[in-house]
Amino acid sequence: MKSKTKVYLLSIGDELLIGQVINTNVAWLSTKLNEIGLKVEEQRTIADRPDSIGSTLKEWMQPGHVVICTGGLGPTGDDITKNTLRQFFQDEWRTDEGVLSVLEGFMKARGRTLDQINKGQAELPKSCKTWLNHIGTAPGMLFDTPKGILISLPGVPREMGYLMEQYGLDFLKTRFRLSPIRHLTFHTEGIPESQLMVYLRDWELQLPKTLSLAYLPKAGRVRLRLSQLNPKQNNVDLFELQAAQLHKLLGVECIGTGEQDLPVAVLQELIETKTTLATAESCTGGKIASLMTAVPGASAAFMGGMVAYDNSVKIRTLGVRPEDIEQHGAVSSVVVESMARGIRNLTGADYGIGTSGVAGPGGGTPEKPVGLIWVGISGPEGTYSRAFKMAADRSGNIERSSFAALNLFRKTLLNNWTLPEPTFWAFSH
Amino acid sequence: MKSKTKVYLLSIGDELLIGQVINTNVAWLSTKLNEIGLKVEEQRTIADRPDSIGSTLKEWMQPGHVVICTGGLGPTGDDITKNTLRQFFQDEWRTDEGVLSVLEGFMKARGRTLDQINKGQAELPKSCKTWLNHIGTAPGMLFDTPKGILISLPGVPREMGYLMEQYGLDFLKTRFRLSPIRHLTFHTEGIPESQLMVYLRDWELQLPKTLSLAYLPKAGRVRLRLSQLNPKQNNVDLFELQAAQLHKLLGVECIGTGEQDLPVAVLQELIETKTTLATAESCTGGKIASLMTAVPGASAAFMGGMVAYDNSVKIRTLGVRPEDIEQHGAVSSVVVESMARGIRNLTGADYGIGTSGVAGPGGGTPEKPVGLIWVGISGPEGTYSRAFKMAADRSGNIERSSFAALNLFRKTLLNNWTLPEPTFWAFSH
Repeated sequence: MKSKTKVYLLSIGDELLIGQVINTNVAWLSTKLNEIGLKVEEQRTIADRPDSIGSTLKEWMQPGHVVICTGGLGPTGDDITKNTLRQFFQDEWRTDEGVLSVLEGFMKARGRTLDQINKGQAELPKSCKTWLNHIGTAPGMLFDTPKGILISLPGVPREMGYLMEQYGLDFLKTRFRLSPIRHLTFHTEGIPESQLMVYLRDWELQLPKTLSLAYLPKAGRVRLRLSQLNPKQNNVDLFELQAAQLHKLLGVECIGTGEQDLPVAVLQELIETKTTLATAESCTGGKIASLMTAVPGASAAFMGGMVAYDNSVKIRTLGVRPEDIEQHGAVSSVVVESMARGIRNLTGADYGIGTSGVAGPGGGTPEKPVGLIWVGISGPEGTYSRAFKMAADRSGNIERSSFAALNLFRKTLLNNWTLPEPTFWAFSH
Repeated sequence: MKSKTKVYLLSIGDELLIGQVINTNVAWLSTKLNEIGLKVEEQRTIADRPDSIGSTLKEWMQPGHVVICTGGLGPTGDDITKNTLRQFFQDEWRTDEGVLSVLEGFMKARGRTLDQINKGQAELPKSCKTWLNHIGTAPGMLFDTPKGILISLPGVPREMGYLMEQYGLDFLKTRFRLSPIRHLTFHTEGIPESQLMVYLRDWELQLPKTLSLAYLPKAGRVRLRLSQLNPKQNNVDLFELQAAQLHKLLGVECIGTGEQDLPVAVLQELIETKTTLATAESCTGGKIASLMTAVPGASAAFMGGMVAYDNSVKIRTLGVRPEDIEQHGAVSSVVVESMARGIRNLTGADYGIGTSGVAGPGGGTPEKPVGLIWVGISGPEGTYSRAFKMAADRSGNIERSSFAALNLFRKTLLNNWTLPEPTFWAFSH
């Protein structure tokens, strides 16, 4: 399914080699290139040194190769990528009037004037094509040569992404006449990748050769990416058909497709049914509320919630009975059900979610080990609860518990407000 | 300050080159190696292919070089690192009884028996020294040869980190007789790196040659790392003296040192003064509560909080007056002060923090633009508020606002409960 063009990624910057910065550009670029049908052959991180940059380019710049450099384009003396590229291509300097005018506008919008140092950002090698950067000072540079293609971008992830989306991806698609690829992502939660693979094996085996499925796991969630090469030449309906089959196979376990991840899916379901949600969180400590409010427009259906970390707060604000905490402990079915009911009373929301668990590292007992979490959900239709067992560190347990709680709520909503039966993969977080 | 030993990092795995995984191992390893005085020369990411691995090793394995490989050590057929290393060193297989016994224990603890596939993890090249992995199935391998040193570790960050901390860092320190380095990290928030640099320039210029300062910026926060080479040979008091000077220069802007970051510093201050805190969050949506409850033992002083996202919740649970919202808007001094007072009443906490702002991307007006946030703080001593202006995207604005609110609370506490004067860098987020 891949083009024969080989892509090489070069990350330039001392800060990457002393561990100051986690390099997120590689994963971002690889994902985007992969989606248009290009394969990354190798990636290197090197220091801001002309000899390192020169020797790598000498090795990589060949016909049919694309080298994407990020970093080393700042206005100060440490940043030597631009001059090194000029020397590599035995080129001269020119002043780019287009860049100059964008720079002036950029500074003006920030109440500053263009100083001599930043003016230098408009000095570019003569032979490169310029990609204008409206959110930073370093433009992108494209060297399209018989010896291969070189693209130089700033290292700041937001600026790099902007230039690739504005110019880079379209340029590569056109330049290499890449066959279009169609993608659709399906979101799941709480099912281990290996079990999904077994469950979907027969369906995967019958997939036509132009379609493929990728598994993208992350912290208890797995995204499934269905891809089709050349949707125009091939049968468009084929993609729809197989996507519908996958959707059906996943059933209620399919949270949503595309941008519709778990918080978005929950919000949309609430908005469609004109209902509202509030949360009462103990062990998850505000993470569920954070996930919901991270979605722009969340206020349409998410009212807010209580972080009832201290037991006195559970009792005082949510109406949890002290004798229930004493008899069953705060991590119990009865307490999370009280919390879920209590937050509805407190806020007036239609639905409530309550969580209480042992996030760790301390606080575990043989009966209630680290990673145990109880989730309660309550609505006009009734109140239910279920336990999960996570096996990560404190922050991992909090994150996984938050997604598990939201997903239990989503499934209960879709299940006509009866608690969904534990599936064969329940408790396997 | 650095040893002449050159370190090379090799990340092996197709998943890294299709963007499935962000490579966090490079930054982690670089930081840890840097701290013991080793410098990373270059890093490469390559596919699970014997030819790619072989050609890189051929180039890198030289006397005085250390190559650290991560990845490709899983039990299945895709993972070919171990066999490729065996061939590179023209070695034979052996069964490692120590690894076998650890593997059996590992499986037993998980209620599983050791199957044939995982048993293969105990088959190792004869010439390597084994580093036992107690949290996964792939052991670390050390090849200490005249042609250079090769260390092979699993790609899973937790297992890689475990093996480096249990074996790798000590081995490298001893093997290269590295001069010990002493470090102390100072945490700051809300001061741009460039302004800190100007402010500290004179002090930096007078630093003795064996001491150095590094700036580590991240999302509105800057950590300052003071390092001293060879603290035993040099004057130990010198480090203490300069650290004390830096501490004094930073004054109230020094949140804490070492592991004492902002949430930890706030918790410790509360615990020392036997007081408690609760939060009333609108735009930050539970992020402040998440930050506080992410610290183990937070329950000693953090009682919880309200995510008052909907205005009706602000009115109903926190006692915010509808006429105040109508007259001043939810993003206003009077509303965040009501919220901060209201959460104290609701929970019984000694102190309250209230936040309300425009996180974006929508909802901004000329008077109240995206990025504006009001923070209110309330205690027995009084109630205050202050506005900040952030300039990031939605998630960045939420994160920076949460840290700014916690830091305003911390500084007010330390300032005998009067609002600290805006410093020259205020509003510069």
